Amino acid sequence: MQRADALAVHTEAVGMLTRTYLTPMHHAAAKQVGEWMNAAGMQVRRDDAGNVIGRYEAAPGHEKAAALVTGSHFDTVRNGGKYDGNLGILLPVSCIAAWHREGRRFPFPIEVIGFAEEEGVRFKATLLGSRAVAGTFDKTVLDNLDEQGNSMREVMRAAGFDPDRLDASAWPAAAVAAFVEVHIEQGPLLLNEALPVGVVTAISGATRFMAELQGLAGHAGTVPMHMRRDAAMTAAEIGLYIEQRCSGRAGLVGTMGIMEVPNGAANVVPGSARFSIDIRAEQDEVREDAVADVEAEIERICARRNVAITLRKTHQASSVPCAGHLQKQLANAIEACGLPLRHLPSGAGHDAMAIAAIADVAMLFVRCGNGGISHHPDEIMSEDDAAIAAQVFSRFVENFAA
Amino acid sequence: MQRADALAVHTEAVGMLTRTYLTPMHHAAAKQVGEWMNAAGMQVRRDDAGNVIGRYEAAPGHEKAAALVTGSHFDTVRNGGKYDGNLGILLPVSCIAAWHREGRRFPFPIEVIGFAEEEGVRFKATLLGSRAVAGTFDKTVLDNLDEQGNSMREVMRAAGFDPDRLDASAWPAAAVAAFVEVHIEQGPLLLNEALPVGVVTAISGATRFMAELQGLAGHAGTVPMHMRRDAAMTAAEIGLYIEQRCSGRAGLVGTMGIMEVPNGAANVVPGSARFSIDIRAEQDEVREDAVADVEAEIERICARRNVAITLRKTHQASSVPCAGHLQKQLANAIEACGLPLRHLPSGAGHDAMAIAAIADVAMLFVRCGNGGISHHPDEIMSEDDAAIAAQVFSRFVENFAA
Repeated sequence: MQRADALAVHTEAVGMLTRTYLTPMHHAAAKQVGEWMNAAGMQVRRDDAGNVIGRYEAAPGHEKAAALVTGSHFDTVRNGGKYDGNLGILLPVSCIAAWHREGRRFPFPIEVIGFAEEEGVRFKATLLGSRAVAGTFDKTVLDNLDEQGNSMREVMRAAGFDPDRLDASAWPAAAVAAFVEVHIEQGPLLLNEALPVGVVTAISGATRFMAELQGLAGHAGTVPMHMRRDAAMTAAEIGLYIEQRCSGRAGLVGTMGIMEVPNGAANVVPGSARFSIDIRAEQDEVREDAVADVEAEIERICARRNVAITLRKTHQASSVPCAGHLQKQLANAIEACGLPLRHLPSGAGHDAMAIAAIADVAMLFVRCGNGGISHHPDEIMSEDDAAIAAQVFSRFVENFAA
Repeated sequence: MQRADALAVHTEAVGMLTRTYLTPMHHAAAKQVGEWMNAAGMQVRRDDAGNVIGRYEAAPGHEKAAALVTGSHFDTVRNGGKYDGNLGILLPVSCIAAWHREGRRFPFPIEVIGFAEEEGVRFKATLLGSRAVAGTFDKTVLDNLDEQGNSMREVMRAAGFDPDRLDASAWPAAAVAAFVEVHIEQGPLLLNEALPVGVVTAISGATRFMAELQGLAGHAGTVPMHMRRDAAMTAAEIGLYIEQRCSGRAGLVGTMGIMEVPNGAANVVPGSARFSIDIRAEQDEVREDAVADVEAEIERICARRNVAITLRKTHQASSVPCAGHLQKQLANAIEACGLPLRHLPSGAGHDAMAIAAIADVAMLFVRCGNGGISHHPDEIMSEDDAAIAAQVFSRFVENFAA
């Protein structure tokens, strides 16, 4: 918990935690993580994506065994929380420090990866660190620009990394026995059920759209209701349909997170509006059915209201299941700690999604306080829960079988 | 029509028409209007609100008769149209120019007022010019600041007007036989019924609110639908209720012109939202019933969704009826021109609202093209309609009886 506080000092904006890819504050955080890894008896290296990787060597004779890999990201959203991502680096390093003090080693190496980028804030491309490790880094995003107009490629070079050598950052599948990520839930389920930890079943698939509506602006006093082509009310009706369609089915959620009337004025019937749609589900079929219904209903609503729509799909990702044998081992560790067992899906995306391309993955969720709020300075978790999660993680590692 | 084009040259922003109170462009427009008045045989003066007033003297011996007063405003909204307001100044001046050429005078003076301010853009206070004339200018708004932080008082002084002498700009009721304002409809009714002009029955009363919603932000993937306190969906539900409640009843309209999720992001359940409500009706009782129903429904929706609301009433104005005897004289003029007669309410506010404090008022509406769009560069009207409106107005004046 102290290290989470200490790491939060490395922020680009005073009074809040913002740490985006390859800024000086991001470098400072990477350096600090590397020092803690070193102190825990790990050998530390960085790859060309900027990931910080610490290796806790296997017991003698097992150095060539596939590694048990863990980790999470140390970048943040703007004005984010200090546990999102960071917990999944700091917690394993603390567990390893304890084993290191005891001189305890395992028949496999443990690799902890501090992923340099997951949130996608600076270059509008997510999971950069874990994709580099998985060998699925999309090189076209190297041309993406940050708000200052610097390309990712230039920024990587200036930071001492070589974008032309990203392929060398990819790990062979054979090197990874399994990947397990510890992460705060970023939701209220564990909190509401008074559970400190849970086993993730799958990372939900997601479909996202951005929509622009074009109706007809008019004077709020002079255009009769039946002659309006009100873009805001069209967005409102679509939003409420999405909300209703995605309700009542566990694991399915739908959100209109962006909803706005550009240059709206109290006395003008909105002629245009823009909004986002984000639909996620644990099961791809459930999500695909919901998306199809939403698209069909949007067409009906816009036709009835005579409002034109441009609907652009901005993201699509299938559900990533967590490996059954790893879920079972996490479940065993939880029960061995005398805790009740809860399985739950992850509605949020995580680095484990990318690593699934080269390894079986699993996730241990840790309870958030404050209603489950995350990506926000009010994100909290308790010291007790951190200790419980460390016990569970330790038990999992100590009994790990590939 | 040429003068409307010429006046539109006086704009603060290239490529659009924006002319706000007491800017250099506003001064240039006032000067131009005064020159046209002069050329039409009128004596021109300015008062301390910046209004441009032209007097077309009565026939000899009638100089002391109460004046037939007409006019409208020459300020504009940002990126507005060139007929809104301006038509109601240019059209009477053109008619008077014709009478002046013929040497024709009436048993009453005609005063044309170019009201300096109606839209409220620069200082967030409307109807400044007509309120000064009506003696209802609210002096507290002299402290209002523009975006550069200049107070209205300072700006008036710098422009050569004396805010301490505003009372002297007020006209005694006895000086005004009647006030009649020519204005584009700013709506689609006349257009849809293929009518060039109409007689306004009343200027609708209006109630406006600004609302701030506070729910709870959350991760779009991890907060189940039934646990959300989504401020955007709360706004959407309120908006659709207003739309439904205000539909199906002639003369009643309800609008959510501002609707936005501040800093909305696709992957965040909106924790806050803000929106405006504008409800107008020809009859005050109809509006008050609708407002009461909307307020009650807002309370129900917010309670059910566990979202807090701050609802601030920002404007309230009763309906202003147009005088029956003036409506009748406008109707006679229309029929004398061989045109079908249509009465309609004005959903928009106009300078006539303010002048009603000292005189009987009436309004002649002129058809807009382009679906009735106004407050927008696409605002248009036809040369034919301008000529018809001028004929109707001339007939009205020639037969005017107080």
